[in-house]
Amino acid sequence: MTEQKTIYVDNSATTKMSQTAVDAMLPYLADFYGNPSSLHSVGQKAAEAITLARAQIAALLDCTPQEIYFTSGGSEADNQALLSAAIIGERKGKKHIVSTAIEHHAVLHTLKRLQKQGFEVTLLDVHRDGLVRPQELAAAIRPDTCLVSVMFANNEIGTIQPIEEIGRICKEKGVMFHTDAVQAVGHIPVSVQKAQADFLALSAHKFHGPKGIGVLYARKGIPLTNLIEGGAQEKGKRAGTENIPAIMGMAAAMQEACNHLEENAAKMRAMRDRLLEGLSTIPHSTVNGDCEKRLPGNVNMCFEGIEGESLLLLLDDKGICASSGSACTSGALDPSHVLLAIGLPHEVAHGSLRLSLSEENTMAEMEYIIKTVPEVVSYLREISPIWHDLEEGKKNHVI
Amino acid sequence: MTEQKTIYVDNSATTKMSQTAVDAMLPYLADFYGNPSSLHSVGQKAAEAITLARAQIAALLDCTPQEIYFTSGGSEADNQALLSAAIIGERKGKKHIVSTAIEHHAVLHTLKRLQKQGFEVTLLDVHRDGLVRPQELAAAIRPDTCLVSVMFANNEIGTIQPIEEIGRICKEKGVMFHTDAVQAVGHIPVSVQKAQADFLALSAHKFHGPKGIGVLYARKGIPLTNLIEGGAQEKGKRAGTENIPAIMGMAAAMQEACNHLEENAAKMRAMRDRLLEGLSTIPHSTVNGDCEKRLPGNVNMCFEGIEGESLLLLLDDKGICASSGSACTSGALDPSHVLLAIGLPHEVAHGSLRLSLSEENTMAEMEYIIKTVPEVVSYLREISPIWHDLEEGKKNHVI
Repeated sequence: MTEQKTIYVDNSATTKMSQTAVDAMLPYLADFYGNPSSLHSVGQKAAEAITLARAQIAALLDCTPQEIYFTSGGSEADNQALLSAAIIGERKGKKHIVSTAIEHHAVLHTLKRLQKQGFEVTLLDVHRDGLVRPQELAAAIRPDTCLVSVMFANNEIGTIQPIEEIGRICKEKGVMFHTDAVQAVGHIPVSVQKAQADFLALSAHKFHGPKGIGVLYARKGIPLTNLIEGGAQEKGKRAGTENIPAIMGMAAAMQEACNHLEENAAKMRAMRDRLLEGLSTIPHSTVNGDCEKRLPGNVNMCFEGIEGESLLLLLDDKGICASSGSACTSGALDPSHVLLAIGLPHEVAHGSLRLSLSEENTMAEMEYIIKTVPEVVSYLREISPIWHDLEEGKKNHVI
Repeated sequence: MTEQKTIYVDNSATTKMSQTAVDAMLPYLADFYGNPSSLHSVGQKAAEAITLARAQIAALLDCTPQEIYFTSGGSEADNQALLSAAIIGERKGKKHIVSTAIEHHAVLHTLKRLQKQGFEVTLLDVHRDGLVRPQELAAAIRPDTCLVSVMFANNEIGTIQPIEEIGRICKEKGVMFHTDAVQAVGHIPVSVQKAQADFLALSAHKFHGPKGIGVLYARKGIPLTNLIEGGAQEKGKRAGTENIPAIMGMAAAMQEACNHLEENAAKMRAMRDRLLEGLSTIPHSTVNGDCEKRLPGNVNMCFEGIEGESLLLLLDDKGICASSGSACTSGALDPSHVLLAIGLPHEVAHGSLRLSLSEENTMAEMEYIIKTVPEVVSYLREISPIWHDLEEGKKNHVI
């Protein structure tokens, strides 16, 4: 086998930090290491840096710095948003939450916990295209609904929800609205004002920023409940010494991503569409999720008769780093809850492939992928008894 | 004023990252950036790194890798330990917790929350020397006690608790034992086996590791409750993409700190004792906390008639970065809960100074501090009406 440079197309799992983000982070590792809560100059230098980063991130999200809370990542932010909304709802006797079946597990598992605490949860259907129907959302909201939680863009199939319409409906009905924007921020335009969101979660490592840092946006006046109790950091709402290097890296990465949003998106869209076109020629393949309302860098397809895990391992062997869906649940034998939610049968959902691009990918890489994936799929189908049964079944069916 | 190099003696607030730790972290920022949950080689490289770091940290704590859970820091680890123990206790009908009045707020505030949920909390007296009396602990444990939470070493006055005795009592009485070892790990020997601890919390940035990363040790067989729900990371007990660079930095820093534990402690002890000796000559000063059972790098003193905050600002002006107590509560006008707990009156507790050393400090710096602090204290007393009233009162009292 010839030496093959690694093609990393798993950017929805995590991204390579940009040099800009690394450079923004480095000085705060060992040089400006103060604790921002300290009164002395070493601490105050760190505090000033955080203030700037907070303002920068607030401007990019279209909110005020007071509405930004730093967390350890997207999952923590999602958890805190839901917990806070639930407590506000409970105080008003409102214990019903509307969400979707394709949310990230940080939302779905928190909802399960709330159900155990007496909350009722309605999960909206997202249909075959992976999209929420605003009229169905409106119909699902009840007098005792306290919160709607709909992700901005899906991490597996890349569908972009009609967030502004959803926000408008929530506003009209007086219901709080949380959006998990982990896959959206830095990739498509996100404004909490336009979304009319009360809560929003984001994670830096999804847009070439550092791991271990994220943001919970909470609209002014909304009382947050702590997940982590302790010191008075983040206005008393998130204890723990602030992770300044990561905060600085996140702000720089977010600024860079937003500055180049349009050009990066255009580049990724072209590569994505080439992939969709090239891979759709594989027989018995389907594209999952709407093709228009879709993240610029997301490809998600199913190939009947194969196991996603085997496909990934063989692709990895050929230098292509991809995913079958969410990294967070890899290792699990169950097929993706997202693919099941859009109506795929178990056996088809098992054969999924997600290619998530970054602007650092190239069209030459796409051509290599278009050449390689069909070969691997064919090989796997050749050795798959399931495939032969399927083929046999189809022949019989035709007859 | 002559140019003065900064003397950083606020290492209990946070430390400067060691070059070893920075070097261990750097490759994982932009080169080995994979998501350890990904099946492909880029992800698996990250997963292998975490496995090594986990084993390294487990060996240093004297436990198995399966008992190590990575968190975003000490506060999160404390919160999760207490919450988990409370839920285990509740299931057995045991809703009483024993702790101390000098715990970090990550513990005390979580206990307050548990009290609201119907738990009863007994806070042990730590006496004038800041030390728990094991026989008082034994007497406080009741049939419905589920947990004892006693910090290994105090973050303000540096007192080291009789952890092994406490662990033995808990074991004998069949009560779970958590210890917040944030100030101890990397500074004094810590073994979860010797401590017979069921839970232990640590934070990397207290021993020259990165911010935003810590460990919750939980003894095998103890069911943890998630603070953060979502992906299946950390055996399903702590969701969120693993912060690999920080984990690598933490492991390296911890290894380095433990390798040099004795020599660093000896160096710090000598500097600490020189400070205690030199600063005790200031009239109307007191040393807070036991002088023997004390962290090697901790000095905590009160100077009557002054405000700690003014002292810090003037010392900062003279190049000395110190603290009045915990950084986490700085900005608060209340005096330290730790100093009140050891019986200091409010007005004395207000005039506190904590100097927390690292092995990077020098004896020459100590001499500068010993020269400078008395000057600043004298100056502040001269301009303080409180001090003059105090002096007057004392004279009258003598008459």
